[in-house]
Amino acid sequence: MILINSQFLKVVNDEILSNIDKRINVYTTLNPAAKLLRLDSGDVVRPLAPCVIDAMMQSITEMSQQKSFRGRGPDAGYQFLIDAIVKNDYRSRKIKIESDEVFVTCGTKDGLSGIGDILCRDIRIAVVDPVYQTYIESNVIANRAGDLDEQGGWNNLVYLACSAEEGFDPALPTIRPDVVYMSYPNDPTGCAMSRESLEKWVKYAIKNDVLILFDATYAPFITDAKTLRSIYEIKGARRTAIEFHSFSKSGGFTGLHCGYMVIPKEISGYSFSTDRRATLNALWRRREQIKSYPPAYVIQRGAEALYSASGVEGVKENVDYYMKNAAMLCDALRQARLRFWGGEHSPFIWVESPYESSWKLFDKLLSECQVVSSPGERFGPHGAGYVRLSAFADQTQVMQASIRISELDI
Amino acid sequence: MILINSQFLKVVNDEILSNIDKRINVYTTLNPAAKLLRLDSGDVVRPLAPCVIDAMMQSITEMSQQKSFRGRGPDAGYQFLIDAIVKNDYRSRKIKIESDEVFVTCGTKDGLSGIGDILCRDIRIAVVDPVYQTYIESNVIANRAGDLDEQGGWNNLVYLACSAEEGFDPALPTIRPDVVYMSYPNDPTGCAMSRESLEKWVKYAIKNDVLILFDATYAPFITDAKTLRSIYEIKGARRTAIEFHSFSKSGGFTGLHCGYMVIPKEISGYSFSTDRRATLNALWRRREQIKSYPPAYVIQRGAEALYSASGVEGVKENVDYYMKNAAMLCDALRQARLRFWGGEHSPFIWVESPYESSWKLFDKLLSECQVVSSPGERFGPHGAGYVRLSAFADQTQVMQASIRISELDI
Repeated sequence: MILINSQFLKVVNDEILSNIDKRINVYTTLNPAAKLLRLDSGDVVRPLAPCVIDAMMQSITEMSQQKSFRGRGPDAGYQFLIDAIVKNDYRSRKIKIESDEVFVTCGTKDGLSGIGDILCRDIRIAVVDPVYQTYIESNVIANRAGDLDEQGGWNNLVYLACSAEEGFDPALPTIRPDVVYMSYPNDPTGCAMSRESLEKWVKYAIKNDVLILFDATYAPFITDAKTLRSIYEIKGARRTAIEFHSFSKSGGFTGLHCGYMVIPKEISGYSFSTDRRATLNALWRRREQIKSYPPAYVIQRGAEALYSASGVEGVKENVDYYMKNAAMLCDALRQARLRFWGGEHSPFIWVESPYESSWKLFDKLLSECQVVSSPGERFGPHGAGYVRLSAFADQTQVMQASIRISELDI
Repeated sequence: MILINSQFLKVVNDEILSNIDKRINVYTTLNPAAKLLRLDSGDVVRPLAPCVIDAMMQSITEMSQQKSFRGRGPDAGYQFLIDAIVKNDYRSRKIKIESDEVFVTCGTKDGLSGIGDILCRDIRIAVVDPVYQTYIESNVIANRAGDLDEQGGWNNLVYLACSAEEGFDPALPTIRPDVVYMSYPNDPTGCAMSRESLEKWVKYAIKNDVLILFDATYAPFITDAKTLRSIYEIKGARRTAIEFHSFSKSGGFTGLHCGYMVIPKEISGYSFSTDRRATLNALWRRREQIKSYPPAYVIQRGAEALYSASGVEGVKENVDYYMKNAAMLCDALRQARLRFWGGEHSPFIWVESPYESSWKLFDKLLSECQVVSSPGERFGPHGAGYVRLSAFADQTQVMQASIRISELDI
């Protein structure tokens, strides 16, 4: 008998997304001339940097000739890209990462949703909340999350509530988890974590044999020198943390899908059935052979180009562009006397709703500014009461949105 | 505590592969001047067709301009590619497949190793044997396979033994499975399945509520008109079979990673916890959102080009090249009076060892012909006693190998 994974039925409909679509449909039906300004997307809009285009063109030319053609590449990614990553993202900052600790991925979602494969099913998962929902959904379908409760949380997960009072920095949990998902600078709150906070977490994780899954996708948007760009800047993190990076946002690679993850060889996990520990690096290597491919050669060459001098310049231009968008939105929110966080080390801005719910602010932004935002509930139960504005949009549109928001009468 | 998925420890070392490497190392150490002819790979060697190169160049140029830039694409793949697939691979052969039944994947491994996510963990899996081991390994790590027995088989799997006497066509099982993995034309035996056989299987699957996972990767290598290229040519298959295709071998896409799978909307699976059935198409759609990305826009444009007139010509040239290699190897094997199958509708040739084991034939090919083959054990317990020769190699090398094999003294 064809039996399905029943866990899927718990996530097969995305009610919050349907609710957003419904409201947009009602509004555009009643106001057919309205041109919506969509600030609800995490997708980039700027073209690829010329050096990335050149590198990809060059590699496609190679693929047209028998002697330079490339078939299957190495399971963990090409050495040229791994070397560029190690050199530029780690060694230049005096962080020791070996090249066989880096795995090129098809992006953060790829690594973060796949990592559960190498972990025991019966582990306790903690997530900072609010957070990118893929962490949670991939655990729901792996039967680790339990059931949805009335507050919109999953009863087997440990939620690390992030509140405005603590700058959206999570406190250590009272129930000890086995694995913690963290994303800093955070999507959706836009807040980075302080060195002290991260040190506290690394110490806690080592002491309690906890695995930290650290999503650093938005690290390139950090604008000061003292905020950490990698968890490995903290002593001891090599024993406890896997770090995930993506070229999607900084390099404009959302249409190419490329990122990487780092699994230091010090991290091991215990196996009940064999009563011994195994290194996660070796398990993930095997997992990649069995289940997935790194991105195509052409795309890895494009990613490598991001580390060239003109690539670094291109990334800076992207970051500046989106951070300028964020600055405009922050100014507008200040003028409208709305409270918000983020927008400083991240392209996301987390706006507190002055009303009883986030949906009311969502509706007001939609009807009075023609701006589509993301209600905080999309990012977990502790997202209620906020909306997220994204600076990943065309600058002219963001300018228009900013003018309208600044004139809002709250 | 960091707890690992202990199932991984069962596959973390690939002993057969290590054994092959060891024998090759010994030989090359003793014979440093020997130039090995590697006929043990499934990887292609011919460059991409000019129309694929052009399409990719064109799409990269689009990515360099803001107005034609593409960020995230549709989760199931771009409509232009799906339309080309439906029109050319199905509608042209009068098979009814809707465009929302097609999912573009990063290749067969991607879809076939991921499909288990939407199925219940406690299902009984059957595999034709010998077969591509990813089917099995992805089920070992999902804890569906049990333990390895002394014959090299997994004790919870149902093996559908394929023997020379029956043309490597599997008989219906005596224990009813829930899911059957099939690959035809088969890797490694190179044999295609007859229409009668497939009809028998589809009928059995419908009657017993069994899901057939049909890997049609090698269908483009079928050289006659009567052998089926799709399981959907069989009446009723829409109710019971998911089909997997890849551009890797026919289009030379092993370095690009693109394929597709078809999940007809008629196929549903039962959920114990809700006592109802859900369509697998909807579950997989959700799975793709949570866990993976289709290939990059650039690559999907390359795949689309394979359906143009010059793309079809390019595929034909690829197929002819590798099938000419296969024909040379078959001739040589005949002259050496070795018994073999395949090489007619597939680039793989399955050679019976005239000795007590496949390893002895492997060693003889290595030491006397400098040819590296794949011992049948790599493909499952019923692979013992055979070696696989692959025609995916440079023609000059295959020619040399053929001469040496034809002169073998068995």
